[in-house]
Amino acid sequence: MKNSATLLITCPDTKGIVAAIADFLYQHNANILHADQHQDAENSLFLMRVEWDLKDFSLDEASFAEAFQGIAKTYKMSWELKFSKDKPLMAIMVSQYDHCLADLLHRHKNNELQCEIPLIISNHLDVQKLAEFYGIPFFHIPVEKDKKKEAEAEQFALFDKFQVDFIVLARYMQILSEDFVKRYPQRVINIHHSFLPAFIGARPYHRAFERGVKLIGATSHYVTEVLDEGPIIEQDIDRISHRDQVEDLIQKGRDLERIVLSKAVQWHIENRILIYANKTVIFD
Amino acid sequence: MKNSATLLITCPDTKGIVAAIADFLYQHNANILHADQHQDAENSLFLMRVEWDLKDFSLDEASFAEAFQGIAKTYKMSWELKFSKDKPLMAIMVSQYDHCLADLLHRHKNNELQCEIPLIISNHLDVQKLAEFYGIPFFHIPVEKDKKKEAEAEQFALFDKFQVDFIVLARYMQILSEDFVKRYPQRVINIHHSFLPAFIGARPYHRAFERGVKLIGATSHYVTEVLDEGPIIEQDIDRISHRDQVEDLIQKGRDLERIVLSKAVQWHIENRILIYANKTVIFD
Amino acid sequence: MKNSATLLITCPDTKGIVAAIADFLYQHNANILHADQHQDAENSLFLMRVEWDLKDFSLDEASFAEAFQGIAKTYKMSWELKFSKDKPLMAIMVSQYDHCLADLLHRHKNNELQCEIPLIISNHLDVQKLAEFYGIPFFHIPVEKDKKKEAEAEQFALFDKFQVDFIVLARYMQILSEDFVKRYPQRVINIHHSFLPAFIGARPYHRAFERGVKLIGATSHYVTEVLDEGPIIEQDIDRISHRDQVEDLIQKGRDLERIVLSKAVQWHIENRILIYANKTVIFD
Amino acid sequence: MKNSATLLITCPDTKGIVAAIADFLYQHNANILHADQHQDAENSLFLMRVEWDLKDFSLDEASFAEAFQGIAKTYKMSWELKFSKDKPLMAIMVSQYDHCLADLLHRHKNNELQCEIPLIISNHLDVQKLAEFYGIPFFHIPVEKDKKKEAEAEQFALFDKFQVDFIVLARYMQILSEDFVKRYPQRVINIHHSFLPAFIGARPYHRAFERGVKLIGATSHYVTEVLDEGPIIEQDIDRISHRDQVEDLIQKGRDLERIVLSKAVQWHIENRILIYANKTVIFD
Repeated sequence: MKNSATLLITCPDTKGIVAAIADFLYQHNANILHADQHQDAENSLFLMRVEWDLKDFSLDEASFAEAFQGIAKTYKMSWELKFSKDKPLMAIMVSQYDHCLADLLHRHKNNELQCEIPLIISNHLDVQKLAEFYGIPFFHIPVEKDKKKEAEAEQFALFDKFQVDFIVLARYMQILSEDFVKRYPQRVINIHHSFLPAFIGARPYHRAFERGVKLIGATSHYVTEVLDEGPIIEQDIDRISHRDQVEDLIQKGRDLERIVLSKAVQWHIENRILIYANKTVIFD
Repeated sequence: MKNSATLLITCPDTKGIVAAIADFLYQHNANILHADQHQDAENSLFLMRVEWDLKDFSLDEASFAEAFQGIAKTYKMSWELKFSKDKPLMAIMVSQYDHCLADLLHRHKNNELQCEIPLIISNHLDVQKLAEFYGIPFFHIPVEKDKKKEAEAEQFALFDKFQVDFIVLARYMQILSEDFVKRYPQRVINIHHSFLPAFIGARPYHRAFERGVKLIGATSHYVTEVLDEGPIIEQDIDRISHRDQVEDLIQKGRDLERIVLSKAVQWHIENRILIYANKTVIFD
Repeated sequence: MKNSATLLITCPDTKGIVAAIADFLYQHNANILHADQHQDAENSLFLMRVEWDLKDFSLDEASFAEAFQGIAKTYKMSWELKFSKDKPLMAIMVSQYDHCLADLLHRHKNNELQCEIPLIISNHLDVQKLAEFYGIPFFHIPVEKDKKKEAEAEQFALFDKFQVDFIVLARYMQILSEDFVKRYPQRVINIHHSFLPAFIGARPYHRAFERGVKLIGATSHYVTEVLDEGPIIEQDIDRISHRDQVEDLIQKGRDLERIVLSKAVQWHIENRILIYANKTVIFD
Repeated sequence: MKNSATLLITCPDTKGIVAAIADFLYQHNANILHADQHQDAENSLFLMRVEWDLKDFSLDEASFAEAFQGIAKTYKMSWELKFSKDKPLMAIMVSQYDHCLADLLHRHKNNELQCEIPLIISNHLDVQKLAEFYGIPFFHIPVEKDKKKEAEAEQFALFDKFQVDFIVLARYMQILSEDFVKRYPQRVINIHHSFLPAFIGARPYHRAFERGVKLIGATSHYVTEVLDEGPIIEQDIDRISHRDQVEDLIQKGRDLERIVLSKAVQWHIENRILIYANKTVIFD
């Protein structure tokens, strides 16, 4: 079992950052496992992810911040430190289609996703048995017209109670309120069943069929206040032909949705994603 | 060298169509090479492509129509008959980027495209030498602001003179007038450098970069009066990452454009495309 | 719910076959839903799949053979007639890895696979709970060294008892005996975790890693007496890089295996596959 | 125009390497443009590519080695320094098929490939005109049976004369002698028309057709003494069906070959490739 720390850094680009960080880690006896960086010339931004083995590392969680604050201040860094031993807590929200949920739960059971899943919330009862099979607490919160506010209040209470770190919308067919989105910035991942920005909004497979496209797609993204306009994490497509009816698009799309969503979730859990300018950097 | 005939049929769907056509061809001793059909349930349409060897076929071009007219009338068919010996005449229009043009000319020389290319028209001089290398007559028709009408008149005159069957816009950076489009319905093929309907219009790579997509695409389509809204023939995508700048998108996109356009051209030449309801059926 | 019949035909290629079949179906008032054919010039073979709605069809299962035998004899056809109402009975064999099994069971539950699954056989107990969750009878038949014959005898007895039509090896890590393979010709579908013919045999991901390939693949195929040499049904690949370790290949491969196997199973169930010359024709 | 230096490093993995390099570059006022590294745990190897802008850099080509030798010695590095201003000299060898050659020349003309092409060598005359069109000296060196040695001597003389840095086999249908391969280690790039290790050797498309695969591929690799077994640089595939004949495979394969070869050439030119253990690391 890996016992590592991951540092994510964003700061203005200037000379000497890598040297400062590498030197700091070396001084504290870190064994670097992965390091990747990105410079955005347009925005003069430096972004970095570095992961090291904690075996011989001389700082603990408490002392790291103090030791690192000099560098962080010098280079005006915003930074986050994560430990592989601290598995993030992921809530899943889902409506009636269960393919993404079944996929995530199966991957979780097989240790593809290094997180805890303290709860599943649905506005329907269809997936309750599946949740039970995998031993995940299931909460049924119907969302009645004009009562979204009340439903979201119940959801927030549960997220608080279970100390949820991030939320995955695994085909949750409700639009979140502005309040919800603001409460969990960069912490809600959605799967949209088109290659965004094509077919924003409802019924993308029907509209893809009507337009006569030769490819269908799926897009995982962070949810922001503008519908389907948040930072894109991953996309993929599949080929269709004139023989494919809407039902075929929907079936083929399920495979896309599963894979595109699960990659986003995995990368988020592994702290591989940095967001800026409504885009993502995916460190691999 | 293949010596075949290809029949393309569109008619209301009803029982007995395949039997009638197959029987007709058998009566006239056709050796069927390929037959493919498609039913559109929604529109109650039957579409078919059948290709046969002419070796033992008992009808010639002149007598076919007379012999076939009974069936065609009974089933209210619109139909077209093409002969592999009659290579269609393709005009190419291009501005300054020469990658699609170079690709088409190279494929043509290597017999991938069974057509004649009587002329290339450009509003710039950049590709003249390339045209000359492949021995294709080159015509320079600048398109000055407010003089598009005059330029198009020159173009029409050349198309008439060379008896052009269809026109390929191989990165021709001008929007055609309504008059042009109406004159050549379903006979102008364009390549657009995005996966339509995403990024309709100008500068799609720049907009793809700004949006932070993880895939870029290209789309070949027939030109209609609504910009980038015509029937899609082929699409493909390539994967990009945060490391790719706009220039990288443009370079990667060139490979997509070449392949997506050349497939559309080949299928058009081989009479594999039927259009209805602003969509294409591609018979393979 | 579709109520259709599907006819699969293989015969020597000659003129008039399509006319004969189309005419026969028309005479008996069939409403053709799909028809697709293939000619293999090299082997002078004609292969066809035709599916029609049974609503107005004037023959039933019993009378079809008699009515059709004249044509079948004339053209020396081997043919098979299947009805959509008769769902085939599929047995699944699996060892410890459960990702393909979980995928097939989930698709079956969601009506992607129009078959019955009367039983699951495993040489381990790992997947028992999964089988129970989906309500499929589970049989544990350990395969001890030198006792494969006895184990297979038990398997055959179960296949007979449940009148199994075909068998899917969903990561069943045992090599079937010659006797097994001969007993179920063209009725055993396997998933191999490489793009065959690369990496035939054991541990393909390890060997792919050692070779330094940039793509990994998966292949579904019918099992024949020569290991991993049977007719290929479907293949797909995923891109890897030097950063991917064997474990990453195995994880990425699971997604390939799931999709490539499920397509083979679906096409087999829908009678879309004809086999000849150790190849498959997939009618779409 | 970029004016940068690229340093490629391979050494035993240990702590402090990144710090040492980053510090060294910072001390000499380098503005790092890209840095990427890879650790191979199995072989305890550290591999790195770092590229920096030369604008404010305080060392020139001559003084770099002296300044860097301390670090290099401490960490037992093998290293190479390249300057973007020094375009490598690439020889192209080709037989009769000209699609890869035409593609490379077109990309070179359009500045996708930052190299010089001092000569093209062919054992046939087919591509002479193409070479002339792009203004590249063409040398016809026939390879008669039993006279390969003499032909290669002529080739070596030309490579020496033009001070060639590396050689691209753009569908050169001759097997190089052991002598040739030893003379240019890790400096000969070949394109093989299959997804290696499938279909090593001659006529891969024919064998792919016979085997009934559903995907065809192409592989670019460095040439070693074992045929088609050298380190793989890039691979890609395209989908085929039972409708595709050998000729179709060959045509589709041409597009794969072009793209897969051109990527290998570009990455080689940009010093993105490190080789070890018969594998490549591609820094992106």
